[in-house]
Amino acid sequence: MRIYDELKMLFEPRSVAVVGASREPNKVGHVILKNLVDYFHGDVYPVNPKAGEILGKKCYASVRDIPGPIDVAVISVHAESVPEVMRDCARKRVRGAIIISGGFSEVGRKDLELETLKIARRAGIRILGPNCLGIFDAHTRMDTLFLPSYRLERPRQGTISFVSQSGAVGSAVLDWAASEGFGVSKFISYGNAIDLDESDFFEYLAYDRRTKVICAYIEGVRDGRRMMESAKKTGKPIIVIKGGKTDAGSRAATSHTGVLAGADAVYDAAFRQCNMIRVSGTTEMFDIARVLAEQPPAFGNRIQILTNGGGFGVLGADAVAENGMRLAQMSQESRDFLKSRVPNYAVVGNPLDLVGDADAARYRSALDAIADDRNVDAVLCAVLFQTAGIESEVVDVITAFSDARKKPIVVCSAGGSYAKLHMRMLEKNGVPTYDSPARAAAALSGLVRYGHMLRKREAP
Amino acid sequence: MRIYDELKMLFEPRSVAVVGASREPNKVGHVILKNLVDYFHGDVYPVNPKAGEILGKKCYASVRDIPGPIDVAVISVHAESVPEVMRDCARKRVRGAIIISGGFSEVGRKDLELETLKIARRAGIRILGPNCLGIFDAHTRMDTLFLPSYRLERPRQGTISFVSQSGAVGSAVLDWAASEGFGVSKFISYGNAIDLDESDFFEYLAYDRRTKVICAYIEGVRDGRRMMESAKKTGKPIIVIKGGKTDAGSRAATSHTGVLAGADAVYDAAFRQCNMIRVSGTTEMFDIARVLAEQPPAFGNRIQILTNGGGFGVLGADAVAENGMRLAQMSQESRDFLKSRVPNYAVVGNPLDLVGDADAARYRSALDAIADDRNVDAVLCAVLFQTAGIESEVVDVITAFSDARKKPIVVCSAGGSYAKLHMRMLEKNGVPTYDSPARAAAALSGLVRYGHMLRKREAP
Repeated sequence: MRIYDELKMLFEPRSVAVVGASREPNKVGHVILKNLVDYFHGDVYPVNPKAGEILGKKCYASVRDIPGPIDVAVISVHAESVPEVMRDCARKRVRGAIIISGGFSEVGRKDLELETLKIARRAGIRILGPNCLGIFDAHTRMDTLFLPSYRLERPRQGTISFVSQSGAVGSAVLDWAASEGFGVSKFISYGNAIDLDESDFFEYLAYDRRTKVICAYIEGVRDGRRMMESAKKTGKPIIVIKGGKTDAGSRAATSHTGVLAGADAVYDAAFRQCNMIRVSGTTEMFDIARVLAEQPPAFGNRIQILTNGGGFGVLGADAVAENGMRLAQMSQESRDFLKSRVPNYAVVGNPLDLVGDADAARYRSALDAIADDRNVDAVLCAVLFQTAGIESEVVDVITAFSDARKKPIVVCSAGGSYAKLHMRMLEKNGVPTYDSPARAAAALSGLVRYGHMLRKREAP
Repeated sequence: MRIYDELKMLFEPRSVAVVGASREPNKVGHVILKNLVDYFHGDVYPVNPKAGEILGKKCYASVRDIPGPIDVAVISVHAESVPEVMRDCARKRVRGAIIISGGFSEVGRKDLELETLKIARRAGIRILGPNCLGIFDAHTRMDTLFLPSYRLERPRQGTISFVSQSGAVGSAVLDWAASEGFGVSKFISYGNAIDLDESDFFEYLAYDRRTKVICAYIEGVRDGRRMMESAKKTGKPIIVIKGGKTDAGSRAATSHTGVLAGADAVYDAAFRQCNMIRVSGTTEMFDIARVLAEQPPAFGNRIQILTNGGGFGVLGADAVAENGMRLAQMSQESRDFLKSRVPNYAVVGNPLDLVGDADAARYRSALDAIADDRNVDAVLCAVLFQTAGIESEVVDVITAFSDARKKPIVVCSAGGSYAKLHMRMLEKNGVPTYDSPARAAAALSGLVRYGHMLRKREAP
């Protein structure tokens, strides 16, 4: 639990010093200070020997000059000055340092990293970075991202946390998640990772009660065994993208983060052994994370497809099969019930095609039957909102099924503003939506895999 | 060319009769009439024996009562009445009929189809449908989609045409394309296809000067040989989704459109033989269609990646390799030029990493070098718009490269409203944008395949 307390302090410090705070609006040290002053729940102190006041806050010449105790120092000064700043932090008994600055081993200055680390170790200071974006916590609003919020939107509070070796990939995804309305708990960009790395954060997030699902973008892991152990211990689903899986990508990763991307097959086996869900892109990562965050696990791979547009049923059936799942066969009882409720030109099967003039009541009958059918593990519900028969009430019908939490449901829909309005309503009600049957089925397969993992864990 | 003239008339009729026009706003016969009255360039006549006037237009009891000549009848009356309406059309010498109504072979009434077809054949009337959405032409605004425009947005004019066996898939995609700002030329939903089918439309679109790229959603083809011949003849790229490729999907297709989806390997071989580009989903279909519509073909598979975010370079390199392409190796001359123009912490290689503080000028230097480098066939340009260094000017720099049309370029970017604003600007300037390196690379691979097909054609 020591690692938990040490890392908790990075996300929930009472006081933060911004070393390298700047008056110029475009400078890293200004953007970080501004985001903290505007939103962070704790105390913030700018450090800059040449400024009197920034954003209405008194500046200090050094961390040591700040009157009260400082939990975390966020450092964005020139790399050459970082060891000196770390010495100040040590004397001040700062507990954690987030070093944003670049200019270390990635440009051949390994020496500066070693010197900084030596000072920190001796003083018991944990380091995140250098050459990173640091942290964003949607709850405490601890936020060291040096990208202004008008360019990079901050996501709403949620239960998905994201650990990223790449700042660029991480920040673009965070911005995208915010604009899609997806909730996030914590974001960590760990850069050169001279002290804390992905394994430490997996371990921390395992204990973090605000995190249900962990996402990770990794190019290379220094200590594979440790990563595997910490991943196994989490008990929470970890969805991982491995950058540099091809030879071309692996070479690119080496010149990017300096780590050896390693043989892809080794990573693949390692991920599988510790139940990590490997995906190839950030969209797919969030597709699965969202459903794991919102829906109950699936306790089998028998999927029922429900639709008012036959073509979506066909593509859905393809996607279910291609994602290693199978079409459920509803019980005779369910089918008899449905045949008494839907018109005779509807197709009571799987896909269950409610046809083009389906209304909310027809969806309700179908979902009622499915809810209690022991032959169905999960539902892929495709809705064409463009037809005249579908009223917004179908959102309530689907939400009621989801709220009962008997089995998971995802919605597939596509279109422009009218369809998107309804998709957004469903999302707000905890029903993940996807714009294609393929994405919806891939997300469901994540739930099936997680359900499988839970059953294995419960078994003796 | 006879087929061209016959089908052209469906898209560009001078006069249209709406048989089954209705006063009730939610009825199919009202929505179709309204869309035509509001936007169609030609004359529109409602036909309904029980109404005096609809939407300010005088109603006629029958097609025969309309004073002038009628090119096309759009029919949405009950299936049982369709043969009688067709008899009226025959007497009126109507040239084409679009039968929207369902209730034919898909519910066991093959007899009604045969009767209708017999009357039409004798009178030389070509039929689209029944059980379909019919046509949308973005130029003439011939529009028989019975989905109101507040629910289904109509796309702007463009050069992509889309032939769909499924009305649901077709309309959802059309709506989505409209909301994304993608341009469309013609949309055809052909339903039961008792007369005209996908082959006829491929042939027509081959001659249509407003169509550069053809998209198709197909569940089953009745006459494979004919389809292949017409596809080969087009000389335009055809991107196809085959619904029902798995056993599960194939069974769903049979109960949906009644056609045998057939062995997937046979379709796969057929598509390959006639240079059709097969994709698995509608997003991927439009990803490739957009780049084919806007960018010159790639005359090789050597891709240069350009980025200001290292992680995107890594994922881009993976995606290039996974899509069967390779990383270009810039000439020594280009590299020397670049080294004199970019800071020494930038990585002059492939990926070409301009790093986090890159500005528009750095992108210009890179694109200048790439434009004239004979070792590069196409560019995957990843831009992280969230960094402080990137100004909107980078949009002009990329547009200038694209406008020179020396080699194709696509942009990968991701994020919220700020990033999307810039992506939309690029789209408007003819530069396709994608939210992940994987999508961007898949799109580029479509250009490479099309370039390969053109070279094969030109070879003796």
